[in-house]
Amino acid sequence: MKQDAGDGKMKEISDHIYEGALAFLNAEYKLLAIFVVIVSVLLAIVSFIVPTTHWLIVIAFIFGAVFSAFAGNIGMKIATKTNVRTTQAARTSLPNALKVSFGGGTVMGLGVAGLAVLGLTAFFIFFFWFFMGSEWTNTMDMTIVLETLAGFSLGAESIALFARVGGGIYTKAADVGADLVGKVEAGIPEDDPRNPATIADNVGDNVGDVAGMGADLFGSYVATVLAAMVLGNYVIKDMGGSISDAFGGIGPILLPMSIAGVGIIISIIGTMLVKIKSNDAKEAQVMGALNIGNWTSIILVAAACYGLVTWMLPETMQMNFFGEGLQDISSMRVFYATLVGLVVGAVISSVTEYYTGLGKKPILNIVQQSSTGAGTNIIAGLATGMISTFPSVLLFAGAIWASYAFAGFYGVALAASAMMATTAMQLAIDAFGPISDNAGGIAEMSEQEPIVRERTDILDSVGNTTAATGKGFAIASAALTSLALFAAYVTFTGIDGINIFKAPVLAMLFVGGMVPVVFSALAMNAVGKAAMEMVEEVRRQFREIPGIMEGTGKPEYDKCVAISTEASLKEMMLPGLLTIGFPLAIAFIPMIFGMDPLAIAEMLGGYMAGVTVSGVLWAIFQNNAGGAWDNAKKSFEAGVEINGEMTYKGSEAHKAAVTGDTVGDPFKDTSGPSMNILIKLTCLIGLVIAPILGGHADETGLALTNNSVEVTRTVSVETENDVNLPNTAKATVTTTSEEDGQTVVINKTFEGNLDEVVEKSSAYAKTQKEKN
Amino acid sequence: MKQDAGDGKMKEISDHIYEGALAFLNAEYKLLAIFVVIVSVLLAIVSFIVPTTHWLIVIAFIFGAVFSAFAGNIGMKIATKTNVRTTQAARTSLPNALKVSFGGGTVMGLGVAGLAVLGLTAFFIFFFWFFMGSEWTNTMDMTIVLETLAGFSLGAESIALFARVGGGIYTKAADVGADLVGKVEAGIPEDDPRNPATIADNVGDNVGDVAGMGADLFGSYVATVLAAMVLGNYVIKDMGGSISDAFGGIGPILLPMSIAGVGIIISIIGTMLVKIKSNDAKEAQVMGALNIGNWTSIILVAAACYGLVTWMLPETMQMNFFGEGLQDISSMRVFYATLVGLVVGAVISSVTEYYTGLGKKPILNIVQQSSTGAGTNIIAGLATGMISTFPSVLLFAGAIWASYAFAGFYGVALAASAMMATTAMQLAIDAFGPISDNAGGIAEMSEQEPIVRERTDILDSVGNTTAATGKGFAIASAALTSLALFAAYVTFTGIDGINIFKAPVLAMLFVGGMVPVVFSALAMNAVGKAAMEMVEEVRRQFREIPGIMEGTGKPEYDKCVAISTEASLKEMMLPGLLTIGFPLAIAFIPMIFGMDPLAIAEMLGGYMAGVTVSGVLWAIFQNNAGGAWDNAKKSFEAGVEINGEMTYKGSEAHKAAVTGDTVGDPFKDTSGPSMNILIKLTCLIGLVIAPILGGHADETGLALTNNSVEVTRTVSVETENDVNLPNTAKATVTTTSEEDGQTVVINKTFEGNLDEVVEKSSAYAKTQKEKN
Repeated sequence: MKQDAGDGKMKEISDHIYEGALAFLNAEYKLLAIFVVIVSVLLAIVSFIVPTTHWLIVIAFIFGAVFSAFAGNIGMKIATKTNVRTTQAARTSLPNALKVSFGGGTVMGLGVAGLAVLGLTAFFIFFFWFFMGSEWTNTMDMTIVLETLAGFSLGAESIALFARVGGGIYTKAADVGADLVGKVEAGIPEDDPRNPATIADNVGDNVGDVAGMGADLFGSYVATVLAAMVLGNYVIKDMGGSISDAFGGIGPILLPMSIAGVGIIISIIGTMLVKIKSNDAKEAQVMGALNIGNWTSIILVAAACYGLVTWMLPETMQMNFFGEGLQDISSMRVFYATLVGLVVGAVISSVTEYYTGLGKKPILNIVQQSSTGAGTNIIAGLATGMISTFPSVLLFAGAIWASYAFAGFYGVALAASAMMATTAMQLAIDAFGPISDNAGGIAEMSEQEPIVRERTDILDSVGNTTAATGKGFAIASAALTSLALFAAYVTFTGIDGINIFKAPVLAMLFVGGMVPVVFSALAMNAVGKAAMEMVEEVRRQFREIPGIMEGTGKPEYDKCVAISTEASLKEMMLPGLLTIGFPLAIAFIPMIFGMDPLAIAEMLGGYMAGVTVSGVLWAIFQNNAGGAWDNAKKSFEAGVEINGEMTYKGSEAHKAAVTGDTVGDPFKDTSGPSMNILIKLTCLIGLVIAPILGGHADETGLALTNNSVEVTRTVSVETENDVNLPNTAKATVTTTSEEDGQTVVINKTFEGNLDEVVEKSSAYAKTQKEKN
Repeated sequence: MKQDAGDGKMKEISDHIYEGALAFLNAEYKLLAIFVVIVSVLLAIVSFIVPTTHWLIVIAFIFGAVFSAFAGNIGMKIATKTNVRTTQAARTSLPNALKVSFGGGTVMGLGVAGLAVLGLTAFFIFFFWFFMGSEWTNTMDMTIVLETLAGFSLGAESIALFARVGGGIYTKAADVGADLVGKVEAGIPEDDPRNPATIADNVGDNVGDVAGMGADLFGSYVATVLAAMVLGNYVIKDMGGSISDAFGGIGPILLPMSIAGVGIIISIIGTMLVKIKSNDAKEAQVMGALNIGNWTSIILVAAACYGLVTWMLPETMQMNFFGEGLQDISSMRVFYATLVGLVVGAVISSVTEYYTGLGKKPILNIVQQSSTGAGTNIIAGLATGMISTFPSVLLFAGAIWASYAFAGFYGVALAASAMMATTAMQLAIDAFGPISDNAGGIAEMSEQEPIVRERTDILDSVGNTTAATGKGFAIASAALTSLALFAAYVTFTGIDGINIFKAPVLAMLFVGGMVPVVFSALAMNAVGKAAMEMVEEVRRQFREIPGIMEGTGKPEYDKCVAISTEASLKEMMLPGLLTIGFPLAIAFIPMIFGMDPLAIAEMLGGYMAGVTVSGVLWAIFQNNAGGAWDNAKKSFEAGVEINGEMTYKGSEAHKAAVTGDTVGDPFKDTSGPSMNILIKLTCLIGLVIAPILGGHADETGLALTNNSVEVTRTVSVETENDVNLPNTAKATVTTTSEEDGQTVVINKTFEGNLDEVVEKSSAYAKTQKEKN
């Protein structure tokens, strides 16, 4: 803020952007307030009905929402204040411009990460004190602590839904609206101050890329740490219900938070390394400076993980591997799992860069295909996005497998935590792009010397690359976070697993797979509708405001800002409803019809898996196709060789590439990034309603003396041919209780199918306990 | 064939098409012969290593491949002979033209269905005699019969892969090549005889739409019936290993074949009802005639199912529902399941028609969006395809759930069987479209009176609608077939289910989800590459052949045919390899590293589920988006109202719609329909290697006296908080055998995690049996 904010014209434009952004935020907050109140009431009702769900989850939820909104607010304010200062700094030198714009990004990144760690830690300490008296009692109590803490994560992710989807619609509606009428119809350049939608366009950069990305990563950050804590709790359970270490017996639970905390300090070190010296630096030098900071952070996080893991975890742990029983896992294997996460974070960025980077083979191919028209350009772009799922999915699948093999689902969650530890650094790299983009816009609108725009253009160009790789990072974080949440969900509900050989579960896997596809379509259509409204408003202003094209009449910027704001908030309703409605419907409609809660829990798990798998695929596909089209179009600016001829802007091939970019815009900035929120929020909703479905909800506070279930499975094979082991068993439930001083023993026997017997006898045992 | 084949010019063109089609088939057969030899050798090796896999599977495989190829051959021959006769008939009247073209379709439909039933029945009778002496012994022997029969299905589906994918590439490469140079560059009309690629284009219609669709449905038909037979065998097993009925105790196994057989007779009745009387009939009347035939078939199949089910099945059966144990299922519930299948077949066609039909809301919306350029047209088309997954997937999910609830996975398979019973009718409706399209092309090329083209155009227009709904039917059949195969796979391997909470299974679910996306991209790129070669060849001919544009020089049609043929065969390699390679890699690579076969079986199951869910989604998305773009473009032919103005061909909006259609062509004719084969073939490969992974492979021919496993799970709950039932158990395996006249008893005890104990003790019991 101490930096010079520039002269009158610059300040005026910057203020417009700032006010537009605030207008959006205020409108959004009003809507969010209503949403938060509704959800809070619902949560309160749930906490009233379900004994293990405490009403404090409502408080946690509200704080999560407020913190997330606050993080977005900080980011927007800083970004909209830094942009003009970057323009001003660019008047003196490029290193200064980088310093200011990256400084803004840094403050935003640290703010987001700091708020996340602060909120989580504070609530954990409070709930740990409230429910457990700040001392380890047992896994059940800790489960309640963490379930209540899940409210914080749910609040954060709900706001992220609105910020990411609403922001995505806002930014593209304004962008398309400004371009279609301004650039195409009126023939005035981009960011021209005569264009009424230009302020909305610049606001959109902040709303979508800064606040949206911030809320997205804030949500991932909180959810990842939470899921890792939940799984840490189950590690303690697998080790016999309590461990003794230097951390009050909760080392495995504290570890993810510690990694996150240390990650912030490391990010500060990393960001300090980002600087350039030469005023004549090009994109490569700027990119190099960012890379030094980024790689240093990653390496330092790896080192920190080694230290923390060996310090905080018992040397050997027992973990329960599904279908394989308890296994001894050394703490070093947990460290290896964190390395897997760091590798994924780094590799996914390279993969994204390969498929979307200027001068790379896929982009050159799209450029070539542009020569035969828009149709072939579109096909090439779609195919590029689709093929890019190959290395990405293999990477994720490998990561799931490896981190699980190292340390079970706790390993998967810690892989995600380690990756997310560099969030502050990633956000700094991400946020500096839109700031530079805005700075360029301000330079244009305030008619600065060309050198200023040239310098901001260098930063903007690097920002475009980091935006693509940042999206890769966000997808990877969402994917790993969802898996961790998914694992936490299964352990929360206490189901044995999610068996897709059961038809209802398989059906829900299909439904889950469909939701991201429909969600994307709704988001894309929303952009189309909102852009149309913007087009008409800009046309109206050009027609009705006298002297607007000569620069004497003043365009009504605020009207365009209002249109983008209202349209984006209105259009995000349906996708939002889809996201929240489906898991609730799957959970509660069968419940009304009296279906077994554990069967519902398994169905919901199938749905979550479907959403995650399909959502990750569509996120990669849409982000990379969009990024590839964008850079294929940009390639024409410097000129490209097609069939031996140099081709530039304005050629037929370039026009085809522009069409591709039009398709790609909602792909990469609206529907693609929304997938992250969709999959995380789906898994979080599952996690929050898990206690309602899970068995342990009705098992507290019972005065039971003794209760045992014995399942016997006898298999005899007598003939040669009858070799498939019949799946039958016999179970006896013995209930021992005290009645009027006398010991009463009840035996009940179940016979039949093994699974049925296990299920029925367990259910009966639970009922008996409840009676007691 | 008795119909008049028309005059010299018509005959000449028709002969060109016929020869082109034969040239493709011959080239394809050569390649297929190599493929069949390689797979046969692999299968022979497998049957040599795995005791339960009999070498007869190789014979079944070869016959399946030959039958499928023969079915395609018949279809192509009839289609290419009927086209010119349709043109000739159109010179007299429209009812005659319909009679001839639909007659051609009918012969093809009945040929395909007849060959399928013939092949399956003959092999079943032979294997039933060979392995069981034509008398029921036990489920294990019947499993071997059906496993061997699976070879027939694998052969059929392998050919379908080549026919569908190769045909899809062929038809679009020729189409795009002919249009780009002919229509766009040289400005000559479609189907103009001066265009060297025009014969290839017409051949493509037959190769892709007739032979490809025929092979696809042939494969579905065989696979569905096979899967239903496999599950019928397990019904008998659940009922205690044998039943007594009027069908030698194999009623549940014979039922699916009987439904298929009766379906052929019903289809003959249905096709006889398809006729029109008035020479002035329009599309609506022709469509009405087809609908009468179709609906009559569906209703008759429902009636036949009622009769067959009540006649062939025991009044009450026991079926094992996973997790719920044995349940009594009345035969009426099986009938209800078949109704579910018929409803799905009918509804999916309506859904497809809604999203792709002329004059419907989605199409009108795309037309509107064309007014703002190709970009918005593309976005609208993509969004339409994506949203169309919503009702389709809910329909499938509902069908899975309902048919399973009625009669378990046997119900799912019979739902598919009932739906497929009308295959002959569906194929007749499908195949008459390309025949009419060809007839129109011949009319154009042989310069007939306009009335002839008008009449064929009416048929062609109806054919376009039936092509879209036919694709919907093919997807639905593929989806249900895959589910039935999936269920058969699980029962074949003997695994307890597919638990996606195990990380390797989840990882494979991701990988499976990715494969259809990458497959589609490869297919799309293949079209692009092949089309480019075609474009260059056509340009060369226009340049080098003197007098070609004046009609004095003769274009070298065969060169274009050769290019399409070679390119399509070459380009199908990579997607084919992907389809076959992935499941084999997942099965055999971990096996080399000594992983537990049952764990691998579960992973492969996860992969199959991923391919199915993602493949169905991408099939619906691509087919409907492609169909929607196509009809949005066609809407301009009659004129559309955009913003109150009538807009026609040649407008800017029409050009945008043409771009959309260019993108849609490979979607709807290449990558979209290939998804069907991908998912079915994946599940079939799984089924064929199931015996290798499944436990029963090493359990035959053992001289075991006695062997029992007893698993005891003791759960004690003593404190209030420790309420989660620990998952531990104790198992004792008792092996009793005869050694030198003495009885030897060995007890081995396992303790630990329940699942682990069950798994390990079962595995140990099996090993003991083997030793004995």
